[in-house]
Amino acid sequence: MKNSYPTNLYVALTHYPVINKNGDVIASAVTNLDLHDMSRAAKTYGVRSFYVVTPLADQQELVERIVDHWVKGVGATYNPKRREALELISLKNSLDEVVDHIRDSGGYTPKTVVTSAKHSPGNISFGRFRQMLNDGDLYLLIFGTAWGLTNDCIADADYILDPVMGNTDYNHLSVRSATAVILDRLFGT
Amino acid sequence: MKNSYPTNLYVALTHYPVINKNGDVIASAVTNLDLHDMSRAAKTYGVRSFYVVTPLADQQELVERIVDHWVKGVGATYNPKRREALELISLKNSLDEVVDHIRDSGGYTPKTVVTSAKHSPGNISFGRFRQMLNDGDLYLLIFGTAWGLTNDCIADADYILDPVMGNTDYNHLSVRSATAVILDRLFGT
Repeated sequence: MKNSYPTNLYVALTHYPVINKNGDVIASAVTNLDLHDMSRAAKTYGVRSFYVVTPLADQQELVERIVDHWVKGVGATYNPKRREALELISLKNSLDEVVDHIRDSGGYTPKTVVTSAKHSPGNISFGRFRQMLNDGDLYLLIFGTAWGLTNDCIADADYILDPVMGNTDYNHLSVRSATAVILDRLFGT
Repeated sequence: MKNSYPTNLYVALTHYPVINKNGDVIASAVTNLDLHDMSRAAKTYGVRSFYVVTPLADQQELVERIVDHWVKGVGATYNPKRREALELISLKNSLDEVVDHIRDSGGYTPKTVVTSAKHSPGNISFGRFRQMLNDGDLYLLIFGTAWGLTNDCIADADYILDPVMGNTDYNHLSVRSATAVILDRLFGT
């Protein structure tokens, strides 16, 4: 079953609220290659928009500078394929703003799906989510940076997606790699 | 069908010979996050070793400094999971050296499989490669940096793997993302 393009999926990368190694709630710094890799994966798999969420003014400026370089600046001519990907990026202060933006532009409030490294009985499988993406609703898939989304953020979501497991007990992919694998499992042939 | 762990697969990331945007043969610079993301993906999917190939002395020093930090230095204590991944990295001057090292340590000369962004009738599919990985032979999966492996390098390989396609006609994943998707297609459940 091949999902139609554009799909019913939006993706968000959250830099606040996330936790650090000690479990403290922090606002993480933006990583340049997260923007590139995740927007390229989003473009590859027909994601509608890729939201980058940070409330920090200096980090917002960084995101704007990177996106402008590739969308309007020298980078747009140097590598038009990169431009096509980074055009999917939309910068927001919070996940609430993302949901509002989707509702205002897409016509429906999206259902939220968070990613987590933990198995839990309430999680939805990749197969189930793949089916849900064909039911006509809009979905927002949320990734955390640093050591992951806060427990409150996870509890607030409509669904929690199964963790990505390989064929070993090591499950520490980068958020860039996890995004690509998850989108491939949802939309790959 | 779940592949046994460790698998029969080795992975190499090549910085020479690769081509630049204009098709010239170059030696590319090492990207720090390639080492992290690809070693973490390799560890997740039971890859035997992750070879980083560059003949440039200054780039070799960079790789050694990064790997030492996470395997022996402060990073090993700060993040032991990162250590487990970066321990898979082995630095070599050339792909020939990689093949020799696998033959000397693994007992067999590996068959080489290159990745490419082009469809071609002679390519092997992901399903076929997945089956081949259970036949007892050793395989070396080769990724290029910059604008990809040279035509000579592709022609020298035993097999060319199908390109990663999503559900759109955009196929410009980063090498980090492509590695994760390919390993998931080969070994994921």
